Amino acid sequence: MKSYRKELWFNIPTRRAFLNITPEVEEALAESGVREGLALVNAMHISASVFINDDEPGLHHDFDTWLEKLAPHEPLRQYRHNDTGEDNADAHIKRQMMGREAVVAITDGKLDFGPWEQIFYGEFDGRRKKRVLVKIIGD
Amino acid sequence: MKSYRKELWFNIPTRRAFLNITPEVEEALAESGVREGLALVNAMHISASVFINDDEPGLHHDFDTWLEKLAPHEPLRQYRHNDTGEDNADAHIKRQMMGREAVVAITDGKLDFGPWEQIFYGEFDGRRKKRVLVKIIGD
Amino acid sequence: MKSYRKELWFNIPTRRAFLNITPEVEEALAESGVREGLALVNAMHISASVFINDDEPGLHHDFDTWLEKLAPHEPLRQYRHNDTGEDNADAHIKRQMMGREAVVAITDGKLDFGPWEQIFYGEFDGRRKKRVLVKIIGD
Repeated sequence: MKSYRKELWFNIPTRRAFLNITPEVEEALAESGVREGLALVNAMHISASVFINDDEPGLHHDFDTWLEKLAPHEPLRQYRHNDTGEDNADAHIKRQMMGREAVVAITDGKLDFGPWEQIFYGEFDGRRKKRVLVKIIGD
Repeated sequence: MKSYRKELWFNIPTRRAFLNITPEVEEALAESGVREGLALVNAMHISASVFINDDEPGLHHDFDTWLEKLAPHEPLRQYRHNDTGEDNADAHIKRQMMGREAVVAITDGKLDFGPWEQIFYGEFDGRRKKRVLVKIIGD
Repeated sequence: MKSYRKELWFNIPTRRAFLNITPEVEEALAESGVREGLALVNAMHISASVFINDDEPGLHHDFDTWLEKLAPHEPLRQYRHNDTGEDNADAHIKRQMMGREAVVAITDGKLDFGPWEQIFYGEFDGRRKKRVLVKIIGD
């Protein structure tokens, strides 16, 4: 069994954003030499997500609006977590809604995707360096 | 390491439904010959889910009611994604709430499940052919 | 390829709670002898979650408040599932929001985590014995 590990680093200039990281994951897969197996792609930070959905800016706007409605950033004082001096309780909750990780099948050396599947990094507390782990196992 | 791949195809006649696909996944596992490993079961479409929960019609009704409350299908104009000519922005959001994939342990040639775990396909934009990927790796 | 399986049992004295199970998963990993691979950690019950987030009590309070707001336990009669004689429809929904499983990379014999990642068992219908599955594969 082969295994391969790579960190992808990001520094998103805004508090929240969605970034298509499919090309970076495909590059890691090519580097791994794995033809059949599984790729785990996960946020290494607990106020960020990795998820698979559509690369359409209108939808990303809808995600952001929906997340802000269900777990608004403000008022900060509505969250006990922010009593610790943090201001990112909403980011921890938004990350739960969008998920930590995607597990993707690898078949014949490619990400085994349906027609519209793309991998996104979801940032909910940006403006600093954060990273995603790609771990690939297989033959 | 063995690997096995199978697509499961569905054509749900309604916009939304939940379908127990455990027997189809068990059949794929038997075909794979894998005794110890992991099975990834994921929607290949970004307006559908694969998740594990209870096979109880009342609960499925509750899921649907809850999803419609938190991300209603109408009015269509509340979503920017629908400005593209689509009418399925809510389906992309519902899929996030229910998840894309399940990863299931394989032990002694069986899905290693607790007493009530069953795998479901969650359709949020049906009335057309869509598919689920089963990828099994192990020995 | 090696594989290792372990059940972790819990009996949470309250209906809902979050429990840091990272030490138990690390112990299972040490027992497995796996140095490179993947660990699947999943609730074996459909009214409980396994997820990765922050070990901060204020945040856990925020999670609970948020879950109760979006899928309240009472009134019981708002859920069809509870017509079966159960009172845990909300627990099945809360489990969907927090997720069933975490898949964690194993690198050099360790859980390959970012600085704050910790694994939690999320109980939404406790006061009885329930369990989590740890399945580890790799070399």
